[in-house]
Amino acid sequence: MSRDSMVLRVDGRRNDELRPVTFQRNFTRYAEGAVLASFGETRVLCTATVEEKVPSFLRGSGRGWVTAEYSMLPRSTSVRVSRSTSRGGPDGRSTEIQRLVGRSLRACVDLESLGERTIILDCDVLQADGGTRTAAVSGGFVALFDALRHLKKQGVFPVLPLRFFLSAVSVGLVAGSPLLDLCYREDSAAEVDMNVVMNHRGEYVEIQGTGEGSVFTGSDLSGLLLLAAVGTLEIIEFQKEALGIEDGETAFS
Amino acid sequence: MSRDSMVLRVDGRRNDELRPVTFQRNFTRYAEGAVLASFGETRVLCTATVEEKVPSFLRGSGRGWVTAEYSMLPRSTSVRVSRSTSRGGPDGRSTEIQRLVGRSLRACVDLESLGERTIILDCDVLQADGGTRTAAVSGGFVALFDALRHLKKQGVFPVLPLRFFLSAVSVGLVAGSPLLDLCYREDSAAEVDMNVVMNHRGEYVEIQGTGEGSVFTGSDLSGLLLLAAVGTLEIIEFQKEALGIEDGETAFS
Amino acid sequence: MSRDSMVLRVDGRRNDELRPVTFQRNFTRYAEGAVLASFGETRVLCTATVEEKVPSFLRGSGRGWVTAEYSMLPRSTSVRVSRSTSRGGPDGRSTEIQRLVGRSLRACVDLESLGERTIILDCDVLQADGGTRTAAVSGGFVALFDALRHLKKQGVFPVLPLRFFLSAVSVGLVAGSPLLDLCYREDSAAEVDMNVVMNHRGEYVEIQGTGEGSVFTGSDLSGLLLLAAVGTLEIIEFQKEALGIEDGETAFS
Amino acid sequence: MSRDSMVLRVDGRRNDELRPVTFQRNFTRYAEGAVLASFGETRVLCTATVEEKVPSFLRGSGRGWVTAEYSMLPRSTSVRVSRSTSRGGPDGRSTEIQRLVGRSLRACVDLESLGERTIILDCDVLQADGGTRTAAVSGGFVALFDALRHLKKQGVFPVLPLRFFLSAVSVGLVAGSPLLDLCYREDSAAEVDMNVVMNHRGEYVEIQGTGEGSVFTGSDLSGLLLLAAVGTLEIIEFQKEALGIEDGETAFS
Amino acid sequence: MSRDSMVLRVDGRRNDELRPVTFQRNFTRYAEGAVLASFGETRVLCTATVEEKVPSFLRGSGRGWVTAEYSMLPRSTSVRVSRSTSRGGPDGRSTEIQRLVGRSLRACVDLESLGERTIILDCDVLQADGGTRTAAVSGGFVALFDALRHLKKQGVFPVLPLRFFLSAVSVGLVAGSPLLDLCYREDSAAEVDMNVVMNHRGEYVEIQGTGEGSVFTGSDLSGLLLLAAVGTLEIIEFQKEALGIEDGETAFS
Amino acid sequence: MSRDSMVLRVDGRRNDELRPVTFQRNFTRYAEGAVLASFGETRVLCTATVEEKVPSFLRGSGRGWVTAEYSMLPRSTSVRVSRSTSRGGPDGRSTEIQRLVGRSLRACVDLESLGERTIILDCDVLQADGGTRTAAVSGGFVALFDALRHLKKQGVFPVLPLRFFLSAVSVGLVAGSPLLDLCYREDSAAEVDMNVVMNHRGEYVEIQGTGEGSVFTGSDLSGLLLLAAVGTLEIIEFQKEALGIEDGETAFS
Repeated sequence: MSRDSMVLRVDGRRNDELRPVTFQRNFTRYAEGAVLASFGETRVLCTATVEEKVPSFLRGSGRGWVTAEYSMLPRSTSVRVSRSTSRGGPDGRSTEIQRLVGRSLRACVDLESLGERTIILDCDVLQADGGTRTAAVSGGFVALFDALRHLKKQGVFPVLPLRFFLSAVSVGLVAGSPLLDLCYREDSAAEVDMNVVMNHRGEYVEIQGTGEGSVFTGSDLSGLLLLAAVGTLEIIEFQKEALGIEDGETAFS
Repeated sequence: MSRDSMVLRVDGRRNDELRPVTFQRNFTRYAEGAVLASFGETRVLCTATVEEKVPSFLRGSGRGWVTAEYSMLPRSTSVRVSRSTSRGGPDGRSTEIQRLVGRSLRACVDLESLGERTIILDCDVLQADGGTRTAAVSGGFVALFDALRHLKKQGVFPVLPLRFFLSAVSVGLVAGSPLLDLCYREDSAAEVDMNVVMNHRGEYVEIQGTGEGSVFTGSDLSGLLLLAAVGTLEIIEFQKEALGIEDGETAFS
Repeated sequence: MSRDSMVLRVDGRRNDELRPVTFQRNFTRYAEGAVLASFGETRVLCTATVEEKVPSFLRGSGRGWVTAEYSMLPRSTSVRVSRSTSRGGPDGRSTEIQRLVGRSLRACVDLESLGERTIILDCDVLQADGGTRTAAVSGGFVALFDALRHLKKQGVFPVLPLRFFLSAVSVGLVAGSPLLDLCYREDSAAEVDMNVVMNHRGEYVEIQGTGEGSVFTGSDLSGLLLLAAVGTLEIIEFQKEALGIEDGETAFS
Repeated sequence: MSRDSMVLRVDGRRNDELRPVTFQRNFTRYAEGAVLASFGETRVLCTATVEEKVPSFLRGSGRGWVTAEYSMLPRSTSVRVSRSTSRGGPDGRSTEIQRLVGRSLRACVDLESLGERTIILDCDVLQADGGTRTAAVSGGFVALFDALRHLKKQGVFPVLPLRFFLSAVSVGLVAGSPLLDLCYREDSAAEVDMNVVMNHRGEYVEIQGTGEGSVFTGSDLSGLLLLAAVGTLEIIEFQKEALGIEDGETAFS
Repeated sequence: MSRDSMVLRVDGRRNDELRPVTFQRNFTRYAEGAVLASFGETRVLCTATVEEKVPSFLRGSGRGWVTAEYSMLPRSTSVRVSRSTSRGGPDGRSTEIQRLVGRSLRACVDLESLGERTIILDCDVLQADGGTRTAAVSGGFVALFDALRHLKKQGVFPVLPLRFFLSAVSVGLVAGSPLLDLCYREDSAAEVDMNVVMNHRGEYVEIQGTGEGSVFTGSDLSGLLLLAAVGTLEIIEFQKEALGIEDGETAFS
Repeated sequence: MSRDSMVLRVDGRRNDELRPVTFQRNFTRYAEGAVLASFGETRVLCTATVEEKVPSFLRGSGRGWVTAEYSMLPRSTSVRVSRSTSRGGPDGRSTEIQRLVGRSLRACVDLESLGERTIILDCDVLQADGGTRTAAVSGGFVALFDALRHLKKQGVFPVLPLRFFLSAVSVGLVAGSPLLDLCYREDSAAEVDMNVVMNHRGEYVEIQGTGEGSVFTGSDLSGLLLLAAVGTLEIIEFQKEALGIEDGETAFS
């Protein structure tokens, strides 16, 4: 891979290098989980809310639900975007993203053990510099973890009903080179843009790769997936550190 | 792969076998392209409309645009679904699908040569038995081709501004086996669901793989992508046959 | 009347001649009734759905309900029309039409015998060449009939709770001549446009006559109603043939 | 007909008798026409607004437009109805009515002579006791007349661009008897409900007859239309009296 | 104050003089209270509806609720305003006003004694010449009073559950002078606009003062509040007269 | 006043004591002004956006505009609130608040000197503990100041087109005592709630006082306004300190 690549990236990173990643827990005080996820200049506030009810299709099933909402503050970007409320609903991109975040975080929870309650992840972008959706998944995981701890403290379950650690990262082909964790300038120039959600065992939960205005080969794909595997594992280390994981807190860790 | 698998599929197909695929052109009479795409019992009416205007962000650029809308008729499914109009807009799933269809078909058009006009692909599901979004992409390509032929006949360009043939197919892991072109019953039981859009050179345009309630390994992924490559190339043959491609009609074929 | 009229119509028909009328049952597979109604080039897919509930104002009354929705596919016409979903609800014309279809089909059902269930008729126009609302009523009747047969097979009632056969047709004054079953070109040129819903006994269920930009006399009205009576009875014959009516299937036939 | 009928109506009227009809002009002060139309206890405020623009499909055509909006105040009825604004748009019934009012009033204006301007009739029901839509047409005509006078005074045209006087009335079959101008109690009990718009020459502009839960014969229809002809001519006399028609004010009167 | 001011107002009033104020009860016949409030040329129809239910947050509390809706008829003003329904909801100004009216009228009712029922005040502006919101509060009080009388007659409570009489008036600074009860021309020219809701004891229920494009001093404020106190007490006298208050009808009067 | 009051407030403050107030400038990086306003635990992110266009009613006037939007993040409160987007628009309370913020900040700008451009203040509540609207006004002023500085640096005007410093604070009567800057627990218990917007000269820009469930006397009002004057002047000192006001930067300071 590209550790010895000659071409420096716009911010001087190596091709396989993440931006500085932090997860600031308890960023606000009311939610059961409230995490400010930062990937370089990208900042997403992820809050987890526990509600003691489930969507109608799950009522009486004994199973829980995890869902997500995603929104950008109007000036999270260099050009102001209208609030979705003035447009009469979330736009297509936001809808797509919140479905991705919801599916991914749902995948890592044992919904039977969660019981008939819903965890809502609200992902609000305070500042956007590329990779907001993967920051939302990665930060959302930390907020979700805190919300589950909150329920555990209340005696809802003896061990957190988690199936694995989970994070997400963007990778992309820029001028033919595979790059990890694209910032906005790189993202705008990318021929291929891919978002990958993986667990701590290196298994895939979701892959979304798009070549708008371009195509990619099987070999390109392999290179990108390798970068993604490296990146997601590193991010999981940052998550663990932020969470201060205790022994036996999860059945798998 | 699974050619020698012992387990027959619900409809008796081999694991790497498509359902009967047809593209019925001129299914309706007014659109510049109007194709009924059938994949087994799934039927999607794909119409292409040429409009002599572009979205505001392209005005004056000399470039064209391709976009898509996707909708299911209320009784395309076994339980009636409300019209999106009664719900106040397309739901999340439809939004996600129409963005996929639009991106994919935009990728295969040379937008410079198209000039300042928009081609809208309307994908209306008359009957749904799994794989409606990939049928929409594959049928939409045929309708797009007809609309471009219509413009060529008017002398807008000397050769169709297409960059490649394109089709899409669904693949998935069911009970641990990779299957090609899932019908609804298989789709409901799948641990992993993946939609792949490829061109006639075997390059990827879009990959979306989701393991809701499950995860998948790199090895699973390789198996699924191999099936997808086989399937999309076969579908492209059906497209060509339906279109009766003539020599020199495209720069690449 | 105008059998000996000298002026041939745009498609060569006599003034009192219907376009070719067909009702293709089981056009799709999931609905309790699914009929493609064709009047010349006009094609309306009419599906009937049985739901085991009624609107709130009928709950506990023991009576059922029949209602309808009407929509045009974007390229059913020569100029693409926006989906109502992008406009935030059905437009005025669609609302007017679906209320007409609902009232008409409700009129021919014995709602007491139907019991507390709703039959929804979805009328989706695949191709429009005039007369879509009357095609929706006439095709909707056939779909309704199939849905009632479906309930009868389940033992819900011993005889179909129908009060009469019912069809609808458009008539109009074009250049002073009364014409039966107007196609789009005729409709655009008509001074008076009238939609008539009648039963097999020649009784009226609904009359809507409009002279936008013109007026009509009592004598014009008589001529138009006579044509409508001829047309609706012919259409009822086509309906019966398509349905393969069996002896004693209805109390009245 | 029923002048000698033995059965008195709920309010003691003869079958062919209108309720007290008045048109109070200048009911409010800002509109170009502002008429409170009363039919018995039914009161509809009809205002006419002149706007110096036309819908986009008429721009540059030299022709004008007439349109209408219809709404009920929440407590115009014995049970409060929600404002359409809380429901997100006019309901089906209001849409149907405002289209009828718009078409009818448009029919009596010479749109060429009107020139590129729009007259909007706002019909707001202050109190509803049956027949609000026909009161809206009849009162709307008076408001329209005043708005045209206003334009004539400004020198826009030398003679009012009207083609005829116009009014509307409801008729219906109640317990088998044809009745003129139904109040709400009669309307609720009617087997057949018909709204008829006619001009001062006894010609029809619009007929809408509905037999929900019932049917009607050609003979029923004749009886109802005869009553409607009597009623609309009487209403036109009330309109003329309210307007204080001057000699030569219209080309036809 | 300004009794001896030299500058006459646009309509010749003194600075501390109300326009002619009337409250016409039973203006329409179905509502439990129906009052046409006139302040000069401003006319607001205020109807009170009693519903035997409360919003969900009060269910089971034994307490009632009072709320309001406000809307302007399209031609209540010299330039036609769109119905809020065409705009998809009440605009900001209407929302602000209906919240003010609801809060004010809620404040004067003993909600415990009202019991679990809601009184809805619909305030529809027929003609607007300034001060519509204060006319809505003042007229709404009279309609509310009538609705409570209606409940008292039904034996719901032995004495009207009112805490005080209540009215509202606008005051403002125009060309530096404090004026009472501004008409539209004065309102448009005002540097400071203030709406004051007071009870018959001279206590405040709500004060809203705004200096858009200007500011005001404590001394200005005192002058305006003094005018408001005079005006609201006068209006309460008009309310009492219109209501024909009987001895012992309220616990306080 | 209450400096020597015996009753300590829930957080130990004196009655006339503000919570800790800070204005953190450049909280995000893209907006022309981006300020996190903190009043105790209340945190509102206020961003100012300059757009080189004005609403249609100002086009060609040479004058500018200032407007505001207000929204709460779902978990800014202890119980999650739905996004307005799921409800189809801002709710009544948000509408009322954003109109207050817009009016207040517009009042302190010389719109002629601003020229034909709009400044939009987005006020997003990250955490709510009472007083969010006054924090939005006070923080919005600082963001507005920074946006004007940005324009001045671009040479748009030689001196900031500001008319005064401006801040806002809430005051209220709790258990009969007037309190400054209410936190949520105090606000919930208040008999009277008042929001006051003042400039650095002690003049009023807006007063909104509400006694829901209570009333207040002229004497109560005086006490509350005195507290508000003290509080707003203190806040203006914090604003100046945060802004590091330079000599001659404004015409008035």
